[in-house]
Amino acid sequence: MVREIRQQGPHHYVFSRYVDPIATVKPGETVAIYTDDAFESQITRPNDKPSEILGAYLNPQTGPIFVEGAEPGDTLTVKIESIEPTRDWAVSVFVPYFGGLTSTKFTRTLQDPIPEKVWIYQLKDGWLEHNARLRFPWRPFMGTMGTAPELEALSALTPFDHGGNMDVPDVKPGNIIHLPVRVPGAYFFTGDCHAGQGQGELCGVALEITAKVTLTFDLIKGKSIDWPRIESPDELMTVGSARPMEDAARIAYTELVEWMVDLGWDRWEAYEALTQIGDLYVGNMVDTYYSLVAKIRKEYALI
Amino acid sequence: MVREIRQQGPHHYVFSRYVDPIATVKPGETVAIYTDDAFESQITRPNDKPSEILGAYLNPQTGPIFVEGAEPGDTLTVKIESIEPTRDWAVSVFVPYFGGLTSTKFTRTLQDPIPEKVWIYQLKDGWLEHNARLRFPWRPFMGTMGTAPELEALSALTPFDHGGNMDVPDVKPGNIIHLPVRVPGAYFFTGDCHAGQGQGELCGVALEITAKVTLTFDLIKGKSIDWPRIESPDELMTVGSARPMEDAARIAYTELVEWMVDLGWDRWEAYEALTQIGDLYVGNMVDTYYSLVAKIRKEYALI
Amino acid sequence: MVREIRQQGPHHYVFSRYVDPIATVKPGETVAIYTDDAFESQITRPNDKPSEILGAYLNPQTGPIFVEGAEPGDTLTVKIESIEPTRDWAVSVFVPYFGGLTSTKFTRTLQDPIPEKVWIYQLKDGWLEHNARLRFPWRPFMGTMGTAPELEALSALTPFDHGGNMDVPDVKPGNIIHLPVRVPGAYFFTGDCHAGQGQGELCGVALEITAKVTLTFDLIKGKSIDWPRIESPDELMTVGSARPMEDAARIAYTELVEWMVDLGWDRWEAYEALTQIGDLYVGNMVDTYYSLVAKIRKEYALI
Amino acid sequence: MVREIRQQGPHHYVFSRYVDPIATVKPGETVAIYTDDAFESQITRPNDKPSEILGAYLNPQTGPIFVEGAEPGDTLTVKIESIEPTRDWAVSVFVPYFGGLTSTKFTRTLQDPIPEKVWIYQLKDGWLEHNARLRFPWRPFMGTMGTAPELEALSALTPFDHGGNMDVPDVKPGNIIHLPVRVPGAYFFTGDCHAGQGQGELCGVALEITAKVTLTFDLIKGKSIDWPRIESPDELMTVGSARPMEDAARIAYTELVEWMVDLGWDRWEAYEALTQIGDLYVGNMVDTYYSLVAKIRKEYALI
Repeated sequence: MVREIRQQGPHHYVFSRYVDPIATVKPGETVAIYTDDAFESQITRPNDKPSEILGAYLNPQTGPIFVEGAEPGDTLTVKIESIEPTRDWAVSVFVPYFGGLTSTKFTRTLQDPIPEKVWIYQLKDGWLEHNARLRFPWRPFMGTMGTAPELEALSALTPFDHGGNMDVPDVKPGNIIHLPVRVPGAYFFTGDCHAGQGQGELCGVALEITAKVTLTFDLIKGKSIDWPRIESPDELMTVGSARPMEDAARIAYTELVEWMVDLGWDRWEAYEALTQIGDLYVGNMVDTYYSLVAKIRKEYALI
Repeated sequence: MVREIRQQGPHHYVFSRYVDPIATVKPGETVAIYTDDAFESQITRPNDKPSEILGAYLNPQTGPIFVEGAEPGDTLTVKIESIEPTRDWAVSVFVPYFGGLTSTKFTRTLQDPIPEKVWIYQLKDGWLEHNARLRFPWRPFMGTMGTAPELEALSALTPFDHGGNMDVPDVKPGNIIHLPVRVPGAYFFTGDCHAGQGQGELCGVALEITAKVTLTFDLIKGKSIDWPRIESPDELMTVGSARPMEDAARIAYTELVEWMVDLGWDRWEAYEALTQIGDLYVGNMVDTYYSLVAKIRKEYALI
Repeated sequence: MVREIRQQGPHHYVFSRYVDPIATVKPGETVAIYTDDAFESQITRPNDKPSEILGAYLNPQTGPIFVEGAEPGDTLTVKIESIEPTRDWAVSVFVPYFGGLTSTKFTRTLQDPIPEKVWIYQLKDGWLEHNARLRFPWRPFMGTMGTAPELEALSALTPFDHGGNMDVPDVKPGNIIHLPVRVPGAYFFTGDCHAGQGQGELCGVALEITAKVTLTFDLIKGKSIDWPRIESPDELMTVGSARPMEDAARIAYTELVEWMVDLGWDRWEAYEALTQIGDLYVGNMVDTYYSLVAKIRKEYALI
Repeated sequence: MVREIRQQGPHHYVFSRYVDPIATVKPGETVAIYTDDAFESQITRPNDKPSEILGAYLNPQTGPIFVEGAEPGDTLTVKIESIEPTRDWAVSVFVPYFGGLTSTKFTRTLQDPIPEKVWIYQLKDGWLEHNARLRFPWRPFMGTMGTAPELEALSALTPFDHGGNMDVPDVKPGNIIHLPVRVPGAYFFTGDCHAGQGQGELCGVALEITAKVTLTFDLIKGKSIDWPRIESPDELMTVGSARPMEDAARIAYTELVEWMVDLGWDRWEAYEALTQIGDLYVGNMVDTYYSLVAKIRKEYALI
């Protein structure tokens, strides 16, 4: 007779989820957080081979940070006060089978990869410069910022409804990021500072840099949101992350309809308004989920 | 014995493709073209029922217009000099099972449709107004503009590599649209003027209006393009139309790499540059193919 | 003052749609139709270069065939009595940037293509043989079969709601294909005989062969269908063609729910039944739209 | 001056991953495992409201089970010896905004959901019967089976490269499931027994039942696989799980090419063979990733 294995009470997950917080913050508090770059600062020279240096563990985050008083059903708001570089160079790379214009682990083909390559940029006088053509202004933002997901211990490479690796350029100084609180203390984390990035993050790797980011935390008690929201001085924005990309678009715009309904709009008028005056751009077209950002200017929404 | 049917030479298509041109233009010539609205001006009142009034034939175009000297392998350029309204109102509608936040003919579900609805806007002093909340500035562009496709007689509702129903707000006054010439004379057409539209054209129907559009035609002889391009005073843009949406993104950015290679860039430097400084927005998320627009500012491309 | 172009009545399409029928058949009539292969029999030797020989015009069809009495709103049924080869070899090829495991015109990347290649198979004793490993049984079906689309003059390469290039192995002898009638006379066409093909048509090109296909035509008057249906001795099947592939799946299964409702089922019971006993396979994952086939055995449906 | 938060060494994840194994097995050992149903046996009556009873935690698994000697880079094989029901009824439900023919959390729309509904089936004499129409044979398989993922603590609802909630009917008695070993001991788990299910698992919920499943574990030392494989007496199969569905198809067929290369095939001959003789069906079209199964019969592969 075979041995029998029975369960001692239900196990919904065969994994546990949380490590201990590295710090605690209070609502209203402003703190400065230091972040490593997406490659743990291991890619430093033009001849480095990312495929040899990098392992499976990428995109290190600073966190989790416990927010006092944060309870499931609240919304955590994070004002990005400033982002300062902590070194004078940034790096972008072409990694085999990763990026927007190549086959990937998911969009599998039998083709050879495009060439591996490292691009080092010097940061000086507000510009990142690799050569005369590859020279771009300092436009920093946090590629990754989120709270603990409800169900899964997602990789730091994954953007989803908890935020995460959205690679959305509007996660930048001056803007307020709204994140769902799904566990007591929220378990906030951030990392992956980008010295600049185009919409889509086309090759998969922006201008990666180490940074000091200064944030002010606050809570909206008793208000839950399903997906991240961003408020700039002039705009309301929502972020949807999914595949295929049209699902990310559907999520982003549905969430913006919901936000407008929160503000007193009729749902069908909100749908009509966004048709005529909404904006929709691609944050990333390279991560495990694509992130799209829907927007409406406050002058059209707050009336 | 059964009757036999044999082919008298190969028939690649069981359909023919062209109607006679309605006009001929010369390269360098400027003409004014009158266009009907997307519903052939049949939806005029709030209580109209689009599902009863509209048939399968939608989005009437003005054309085809024969461009003298245009040969396959050339590029047709169309400068949009101006767009003037020819009536003082515009219309948007919710059509059952059509739009961005509903199931559709393609994304089929067993759910009931959202409510049918007609939104009439008055055009006055540069604003389109339905009510105090639904009030948007006059930002006209041509929803549909294209040349004859190479192989198919596509519906006027379809955007593809010939242009067509792209619903891209950058097809606007001041910009130059580059279209492939696939048949002698190019067979240009346009229509579907929008008094304004957000990115994505969320509910599927923008601010539809009749218009007089003034265009200047020209040819780039011996230069072929695979997909439409748009040049604004400050930007270079490419349009990809496909499903799923990530394929439209891949097309748009690959075509922008190709344009930069045309301008003397190394292919991999172009890929890197667009990663850091490109823009990517959704023109439509509702048509038979989704249209995405990739951009680079001339200050970063023309160096 | 610029010249003005006005429209002489609405032009919904800048193209016309139909060529003259090559034959007329009556309901109940059985005819034999000869079809060329997908390459117009131009690829005949292992060293042929498809990329040099083939142009844009591919997949020649025999038709259109006018079906007497067929009116829009009817359904055309086509019983496939037999398929006989009209030569003793078949051909498959790898075409650059075409197929299931390569980037394509739509899923664009910057990678090099996979190698171009021609595979010639001898047909003998019911087997197609290229070498000892590449040896497959004769399992013929028509890759392309359809009626005139309602709105567009689609390429013979496109599968859609009119049938067309579905590449579905169940379009085979013994089965009855139901096609929508969208224009008077239906304008039936067929071609693209496959001596055999796996599900998905992975590399994009099956065992292409010329053939004589014997068909019996009939009409279901006053019964319209939205997408093709297939009836085998034991099964009811529906075909959905769309991108992304999940949309093709949604169409196929929704249409099968509709067919069961036609047969007297409650819609929700049909949804539940297909959950537990339906089948769903990929016909093609390579054409301009993907074609998926949903099935239910008659023993579960006809009760 | 603000307080500063620095990282004490790199944290790639803000979550930890593993709970303690509930049992240990040796290679070659056969054990019987008891599994709960996907709803933790909470849905038992026709009038139960899933939306009220069910929380976020679904699909409980039995595990993790530590396999002695399993090291990263090995392959775990699991022969399914038998599946026996441990109760005499099964349950399927329609859950709001979940399933194949409805909008969902990802494919968001503004539509109302389809009706919520519970279907109870009695198991008797090898048939599951709800009523005269909804009556299906006992065809049991395990909806969920996998090993620890490399990077993430995925929910039991997610199918991915570690196996998991694939909902593939070929995970059935008589077949051998090959799973990657990513952590020492493999951390095997299984659950979600289905008394039967169609391809696609259309409404999202199969015939859910509690079960005793008898498995024989073994290891292939030093052989790593990227995605799950299944061996039946007659077929070799691979499973890809991704969105959009075409990515799942690409993964499944690429992995089958790789398996054939493992067996000595030339890569291009394998691609050609699968084109002509492969099979490709949809396991699920409802989970967080879609799972597709590619197949080849051994008589065509083992030569």
